[in-house]
Amino acid sequence: MAKQPELDDFRVPYFDNGKKKTKFSLNDFDPGAKPFSTGSKDTDRDRLAEIGAQLEMQQECLHAQQKRRVLLVLQGMDTSGKDGTIRAVFHDVDPLGLRIVPFKAPTPVELAHDFLWRVHSQAPAAGELTIFNRSHYEDLLVPTVRGELDAQAFEQRCCHIRQFEEMLAYSGTTIVKCMLHISKDEQRVRLQARIDDPSKHWKFDVSDLEARKQWDAYQSAYRDALAMTSTDYAPWYVIPADSKTHRNVMVAELLLRVLQELKLEYPPPKESLKGIRVE
Amino acid sequence: MAKQPELDDFRVPYFDNGKKKTKFSLNDFDPGAKPFSTGSKDTDRDRLAEIGAQLEMQQECLHAQQKRRVLLVLQGMDTSGKDGTIRAVFHDVDPLGLRIVPFKAPTPVELAHDFLWRVHSQAPAAGELTIFNRSHYEDLLVPTVRGELDAQAFEQRCCHIRQFEEMLAYSGTTIVKCMLHISKDEQRVRLQARIDDPSKHWKFDVSDLEARKQWDAYQSAYRDALAMTSTDYAPWYVIPADSKTHRNVMVAELLLRVLQELKLEYPPPKESLKGIRVE
Repeated sequence: MAKQPELDDFRVPYFDNGKKKTKFSLNDFDPGAKPFSTGSKDTDRDRLAEIGAQLEMQQECLHAQQKRRVLLVLQGMDTSGKDGTIRAVFHDVDPLGLRIVPFKAPTPVELAHDFLWRVHSQAPAAGELTIFNRSHYEDLLVPTVRGELDAQAFEQRCCHIRQFEEMLAYSGTTIVKCMLHISKDEQRVRLQARIDDPSKHWKFDVSDLEARKQWDAYQSAYRDALAMTSTDYAPWYVIPADSKTHRNVMVAELLLRVLQELKLEYPPPKESLKGIRVE
Repeated sequence: MAKQPELDDFRVPYFDNGKKKTKFSLNDFDPGAKPFSTGSKDTDRDRLAEIGAQLEMQQECLHAQQKRRVLLVLQGMDTSGKDGTIRAVFHDVDPLGLRIVPFKAPTPVELAHDFLWRVHSQAPAAGELTIFNRSHYEDLLVPTVRGELDAQAFEQRCCHIRQFEEMLAYSGTTIVKCMLHISKDEQRVRLQARIDDPSKHWKFDVSDLEARKQWDAYQSAYRDALAMTSTDYAPWYVIPADSKTHRNVMVAELLLRVLQELKLEYPPPKESLKGIRVE
């Protein structure tokens, strides 16, 4: 019998301060792989619905307890499916318990502050499940590809990110980070589909094609960013994402495991309410 | 054939600056009425799913257009079902297009500002559908019941709210406000159910019972607040809410109508994308 895939096989090795060049390559991960798929889209969708129901229960418990905070960071190239993942995985989760924060190109006011300023203010509160749709990692990737951040400044930012995430984790935030990993071929197909369907043009900006021309530079920046910021308190996972169904199931499985490991429990009944009759 | 109910029959008359005591009484609305129910819970749920699908389409269009902003304000006594309404009505709406803002008792920092400060910063952006779960109206109701806001100060706050909402509307925000109207009896049943089920104690605070003791004062404050702040740019609706299914259907119908009246359209295809082949 073939070895069952383990989520941990897709975790980026933890950053080791001594040897900055952790042995890790995105090429070791096949974007077309479907290790968490059953092989049938229908069965996968059933599984996703099942996990969705469990996520909903876990999230209610998180909310009831008002202690822990959970942060899911989603990163990936254009068309890798960040929006689609949020839509599919959180379909059954109570919208009251979910906060989705999209990070776009920084505004002049945001740029007038340090790069973690706008991120910190959006960190999850007690009882909250927060999703970052893009994140502070854009501030590593984009300036690097544009040649505005040299290797030393890049490492410095990675260090600031690690320290920031460690502080969040220490303060009760569970952090899990997913890179939705698609192939260059699959991106071509998805971009072309958007161009060929005029009703989808609003989702498209010609500058998306510029970023594609720098595919290799982005992959290299991703590799370094992931290697230098995957830690035991904020691990990175590489999610094979050429298959949308697989991507959704895998992110859902991962998040469910993270929540289950918190061993969340409802607060005990309040003695003070015992026997009260409402007038 | 009986007259079909009209949403406008449940709209609070617009505030008329000349005669502050608009002819309007909450007693004219039966919390137990189900004017938008078909009489069958199953059919109502089907209808809700149908509206949900339409809301999803409207919301995508709102997001694609990135012009209009929509704000739904939900108010109501404890247990009136603000959370439940959000859960049921927005079940099918893309979580990416929805922002839910809960307003709790103001913090010291918030209290150090004017009462609209924390509200303004949460107003919807272009393309956003934002729901206020409680709102700036708490700052009329609570201090009034506590005797901290006299009639003149109350009127002044109402005036500030009208001017604030008018400015939002002028800037492209469509505002609709719902008061979930339950009876005192129904609240007793719901509070008792929470007390009798220890697993629900986390939802309950003994102070909820104090607010209930001031039921009449709250109803009176609600009456005045609604009468003085229902305007053509930000109308109030009274939603009979003793029946949860009816409440959900009615809020969904109302919001759908509001969105339909905006006549949202997808942006036109971009000529610049025509014929592009992705390399």
